[in-house]
Amino acid sequence: MFRKPVRAGGRADDEIRPLFFTRGYTRYAEGSVLVESGQTRVLCTVSVEEKVPAFLRGTSRGWLTAEYNMLPRATLKRNQRDRASGGRNGRAAEIQRLIGRSMRSIIDFEVLSGYTLVVDCDVIQADGSTRTAAVNGAYVALCDAAAKMLKEKIIKDYPLHGAVAAVSVGINRGRPLLDLDYQEDSTAEVDMNVVMNDARQFVELQGTAEGHAFRRDELSVLLDWAERGTQTIIAKQREALSRPIGG
Amino acid sequence: MFRKPVRAGGRADDEIRPLFFTRGYTRYAEGSVLVESGQTRVLCTVSVEEKVPAFLRGTSRGWLTAEYNMLPRATLKRNQRDRASGGRNGRAAEIQRLIGRSMRSIIDFEVLSGYTLVVDCDVIQADGSTRTAAVNGAYVALCDAAAKMLKEKIIKDYPLHGAVAAVSVGINRGRPLLDLDYQEDSTAEVDMNVVMNDARQFVELQGTAEGHAFRRDELSVLLDWAERGTQTIIAKQREALSRPIGG
Amino acid sequence: MFRKPVRAGGRADDEIRPLFFTRGYTRYAEGSVLVESGQTRVLCTVSVEEKVPAFLRGTSRGWLTAEYNMLPRATLKRNQRDRASGGRNGRAAEIQRLIGRSMRSIIDFEVLSGYTLVVDCDVIQADGSTRTAAVNGAYVALCDAAAKMLKEKIIKDYPLHGAVAAVSVGINRGRPLLDLDYQEDSTAEVDMNVVMNDARQFVELQGTAEGHAFRRDELSVLLDWAERGTQTIIAKQREALSRPIGG
Amino acid sequence: MFRKPVRAGGRADDEIRPLFFTRGYTRYAEGSVLVESGQTRVLCTVSVEEKVPAFLRGTSRGWLTAEYNMLPRATLKRNQRDRASGGRNGRAAEIQRLIGRSMRSIIDFEVLSGYTLVVDCDVIQADGSTRTAAVNGAYVALCDAAAKMLKEKIIKDYPLHGAVAAVSVGINRGRPLLDLDYQEDSTAEVDMNVVMNDARQFVELQGTAEGHAFRRDELSVLLDWAERGTQTIIAKQREALSRPIGG
Amino acid sequence: MFRKPVRAGGRADDEIRPLFFTRGYTRYAEGSVLVESGQTRVLCTVSVEEKVPAFLRGTSRGWLTAEYNMLPRATLKRNQRDRASGGRNGRAAEIQRLIGRSMRSIIDFEVLSGYTLVVDCDVIQADGSTRTAAVNGAYVALCDAAAKMLKEKIIKDYPLHGAVAAVSVGINRGRPLLDLDYQEDSTAEVDMNVVMNDARQFVELQGTAEGHAFRRDELSVLLDWAERGTQTIIAKQREALSRPIGG
Amino acid sequence: MFRKPVRAGGRADDEIRPLFFTRGYTRYAEGSVLVESGQTRVLCTVSVEEKVPAFLRGTSRGWLTAEYNMLPRATLKRNQRDRASGGRNGRAAEIQRLIGRSMRSIIDFEVLSGYTLVVDCDVIQADGSTRTAAVNGAYVALCDAAAKMLKEKIIKDYPLHGAVAAVSVGINRGRPLLDLDYQEDSTAEVDMNVVMNDARQFVELQGTAEGHAFRRDELSVLLDWAERGTQTIIAKQREALSRPIGG
Repeated sequence: MFRKPVRAGGRADDEIRPLFFTRGYTRYAEGSVLVESGQTRVLCTVSVEEKVPAFLRGTSRGWLTAEYNMLPRATLKRNQRDRASGGRNGRAAEIQRLIGRSMRSIIDFEVLSGYTLVVDCDVIQADGSTRTAAVNGAYVALCDAAAKMLKEKIIKDYPLHGAVAAVSVGINRGRPLLDLDYQEDSTAEVDMNVVMNDARQFVELQGTAEGHAFRRDELSVLLDWAERGTQTIIAKQREALSRPIGG
Repeated sequence: MFRKPVRAGGRADDEIRPLFFTRGYTRYAEGSVLVESGQTRVLCTVSVEEKVPAFLRGTSRGWLTAEYNMLPRATLKRNQRDRASGGRNGRAAEIQRLIGRSMRSIIDFEVLSGYTLVVDCDVIQADGSTRTAAVNGAYVALCDAAAKMLKEKIIKDYPLHGAVAAVSVGINRGRPLLDLDYQEDSTAEVDMNVVMNDARQFVELQGTAEGHAFRRDELSVLLDWAERGTQTIIAKQREALSRPIGG
Repeated sequence: MFRKPVRAGGRADDEIRPLFFTRGYTRYAEGSVLVESGQTRVLCTVSVEEKVPAFLRGTSRGWLTAEYNMLPRATLKRNQRDRASGGRNGRAAEIQRLIGRSMRSIIDFEVLSGYTLVVDCDVIQADGSTRTAAVNGAYVALCDAAAKMLKEKIIKDYPLHGAVAAVSVGINRGRPLLDLDYQEDSTAEVDMNVVMNDARQFVELQGTAEGHAFRRDELSVLLDWAERGTQTIIAKQREALSRPIGG
Repeated sequence: MFRKPVRAGGRADDEIRPLFFTRGYTRYAEGSVLVESGQTRVLCTVSVEEKVPAFLRGTSRGWLTAEYNMLPRATLKRNQRDRASGGRNGRAAEIQRLIGRSMRSIIDFEVLSGYTLVVDCDVIQADGSTRTAAVNGAYVALCDAAAKMLKEKIIKDYPLHGAVAAVSVGINRGRPLLDLDYQEDSTAEVDMNVVMNDARQFVELQGTAEGHAFRRDELSVLLDWAERGTQTIIAKQREALSRPIGG
Repeated sequence: MFRKPVRAGGRADDEIRPLFFTRGYTRYAEGSVLVESGQTRVLCTVSVEEKVPAFLRGTSRGWLTAEYNMLPRATLKRNQRDRASGGRNGRAAEIQRLIGRSMRSIIDFEVLSGYTLVVDCDVIQADGSTRTAAVNGAYVALCDAAAKMLKEKIIKDYPLHGAVAAVSVGINRGRPLLDLDYQEDSTAEVDMNVVMNDARQFVELQGTAEGHAFRRDELSVLLDWAERGTQTIIAKQREALSRPIGG
Repeated sequence: MFRKPVRAGGRADDEIRPLFFTRGYTRYAEGSVLVESGQTRVLCTVSVEEKVPAFLRGTSRGWLTAEYNMLPRATLKRNQRDRASGGRNGRAAEIQRLIGRSMRSIIDFEVLSGYTLVVDCDVIQADGSTRTAAVNGAYVALCDAAAKMLKEKIIKDYPLHGAVAAVSVGINRGRPLLDLDYQEDSTAEVDMNVVMNDARQFVELQGTAEGHAFRRDELSVLLDWAERGTQTIIAKQREALSRPIGG
């Protein structure tokens, strides 16, 4: 009889990895969070800059932009720095656009008038699902930065509405999995990243068939699991935010 | 009483724009197709190169890579060429990765051993949904290039299995729409691109909430329409491929 | 006895290829012309931008700048996009400077005060003499853009005086030829591009000996033919401009 | 009466900040050390690559190269990533050359034949003297990588001879200081970085007068302190290396 | 009555400026010539490299390539180095292609099999007509490099046939001029660079109308003067080459 | 018995090479000096630009910045231009930072309010110690530029206090040497560049052990020689400045 392989750490197929947020991980950024999801570790900082991009000049709106980067040896094999590759990193471009859109979906930019928030997600160690970890950490760092701006009276109202979280789902040898690690991801037929808010609505949905296309009923299972996964993560974000920084 | 605005050309909300494929549009490429979807026009060429990328050297597999580009005045306002911006175009990077994955999903790379196919999608006129048009035209050009390789005995078997097509769906002021033009897209709350094969399975799914997140039931309608849209497009691709080139 | 090889299409040595201008080829640019010269096809657009380069700020003069680019598979073998080569394309730089100077030779820049016209020449299919085709198409697109600016009262006077056209001449195995196609050009000993105005005066003259230097008397024949060639082209430009756009 | 300002943490003028090495900080690199010197934190990894640079091909020598980078928000104000500045970062170039030369001074490259070690120093938090911290952490990571290569029989002998450590010294308002933090460094008249080995010999010496040039007798004090500082650091490196990784 | 303005140095309209070649100006290059034409000074070196570009691999032909550059303060106002402008210098690209073609017109590349000659023209001081000075100096440096290769038995035959020289001609306020200085060039209506060989044949001809197009009869005068000018220069090149280097 | 090898030119171990400054070497720069130190030749120009960098806007301070570059064939083997290497030249970055700091150490930037001086050091021939030659020539050019600014009443006071000079010292096979040529430098164990002012104080000190680390007593000898060397050079700079330009 066929036995399903046991996942690393013994977790269930629809279970996320242990998830920790360390707020105030570095001291200068307005928001600074180390997010650890299993062996994946991403440093997410939010910086407040008193300027807006050209296309918003003359309006009363602020902005948020995101950058995503891997340290050269976050991975099994060393990867070149962007400066060595002339900045042509399509994967990073794709990811940082995802992070930016996710964060912007919960921001009231009228409140941020005159300011740009810069989210930096630097992957310190990569064991799969780094982009969803980045979204999850970025949200916590964003809350801290927003609270700080309000406390220091840089802005008049709290600019965030609702929460966002991201999780990966996939199909590996016909078997649905939640929150894939590198080993699972690199052999998956289907790989999907889902960003949802605390009203259980979709913010981003990016599914890719690597090898085998997927059916509507398979998609349905993945979305069920993604919904539960993101709500679990939102609960953990809330819990982390309810404690004092450094607590 | 509120009246739904009429779509350009008087089409129904779940109707795609007029779609035409001109095969053999240019003469040198192994596959060359001008795809016209309403006012959107994309030139898709497929080139055969006798080499493989570094990560495949020493294997018996071929490869396919894609590039996407807009002519500077494909759009209402002129956009800078990539060489002027140092090649940092995150949007183009994201799109050409989508096109590449979509085409690779139906290729048997053992058959292509030693060869790389290069898909070039150059947008000549942009009226929304250029990336889905690019996927649709690229597939037809890919079929022509594959047939030519087989005919000229460069390869021993036909390397493609199945067909792929892409369509955009979205929600504009609460109203679902299929195959959005620029006007509809730029004011949409939800924007989704769906790539499916002829077995009605998903190859790619990329949904983004711009402004308002979307519910699971809204997603369900969009996916229904996307399925019907892609199957209509696959029928049109087949019809175009059934005629002689230039016919 | 030696017989002169027949030219493609059976044309005489001092005869240009069939030449067509399709005005309004794309819909957004202020001027948009597809020029077809035999198998060579170039899309020429003219865009109006409300700004001037730094060296003209504070003056009452406008400007015109040009860009020239080949689509990757305009040619027999695919050529890399500029962004892949870091923008170092000496040939394109040389050509776009030629196009810019040719157009600027017939513009009254006082009339264009505050505006820059951007000419984009994108080669869709290359069968020799693409730069002269680009000049010829650019002139027609420039007329359309100028007429539009005047009609929309962006400018007070028509800014163009006279017409310009370009043609290639060369010597292939000792035999002078007008308007060389790729086959003829790639084996020519002498290759010359001539831009003239409708007063039969020279605007640009660029002759290169590839292999064998040329004598003054040979130059004389080439210039005679170039003069006749450009005047024929100017007549065709006029005819194209005399019809309604899209007519 | 004038009172000397107290240094942060109450340390003496010739005392280094608390210094910690966390070995095995990340899991994939052959050597991976987080070095913390007061509030300065640098992640130093050493990667083994089976190739040598072009100038060593055909010889029996290996090589070591170093890269230094700051995370965007390691500092009080966010600094741009290199990819945004086109890689033109003279300061980083200067520092990574220093790190590379320091490490190379204790390596027997015959033993490393066929291999290049890549040292990556990524500054996570910057409170002054990041380059000396990088050297100190890089040395510990280098020891771990060398030991691993030997253990896995990639090399036949241990390739390192001796130890290296680096420390900053400076003069701030006429007062010599050891191991300057950001506050002290940014107002110093003299700033010097000294790399020494465990035989108390100089490997690198880089002194800069910012504002006021320094006399030979002042230099003498700085060098005395640097010698003592580096030897203290070497003792701490040894101690860290004497424990098991992760211990 | 109108009086023609006197040219700088009192020379006649059809007279070139004082022209000097200093051979062996630097000591490492195989050919090294400082050419001085009035106040214009260009250092031309020729380097021999034992390799050929990719498109010649597997053939028995050598190659020659040229680079042209201005020192930042060769000019009245400082101009940025190429590295600061990302290498996008259309003017330099145009010029170095001209120099390369001119030199290649007199080389027998079978003799140079396996070697590439690199011509570097660095403008130390620019007072107009720097590109023609570069061609003239490059030819002398090329002769020295060729002689050295033959003497050292790197090649079996002398690879050059004939001589080349370049001169500028132009029309300034209706008046033809030979060898224009910066002042004359910047106010000229017509600017032409002519490269001829010692058989009085044309190698390159590049004429540009800045402001006013020129007639065939005006061209005729300019070509007469250019012919005489280049033959005078060829005589001076010969004389310089007839003396010992450093003599 | 072992005999010390004789140095090129027969000079003593603690003797600098023949040193010449040609002021007014080019005509457009505000300061322009060719410095020749043995076979090393560097052209140093100082340009006055009426602007300040962003970080000084709104202050009353001027600035000085430096660039260092080698002509491609200044060296035994041709080296690529920066534009070919994408501007990533760590060595040049390091050197131009050294030149900039050295010059800035003697400038009163309040006097230069609103102006930036740009020092360009272009190495025409490289026989070792090019960076120290560049510093020495830059100082003389800076004096000329400062005098010119004062004479033309661009500034109110002379902005320089004191003089600076640089010299290299090193240890080659155990033997200390002053002012190393290329041959000596490339085989040296210790290589040090020292910049001092006319009060015999240190401005910059950069020592590197290539192969063997150096002891404190060895450093002491090197510093003694460097002090004497720089004072000799300062005397030669003064002498050069005491004569009329071009004299």
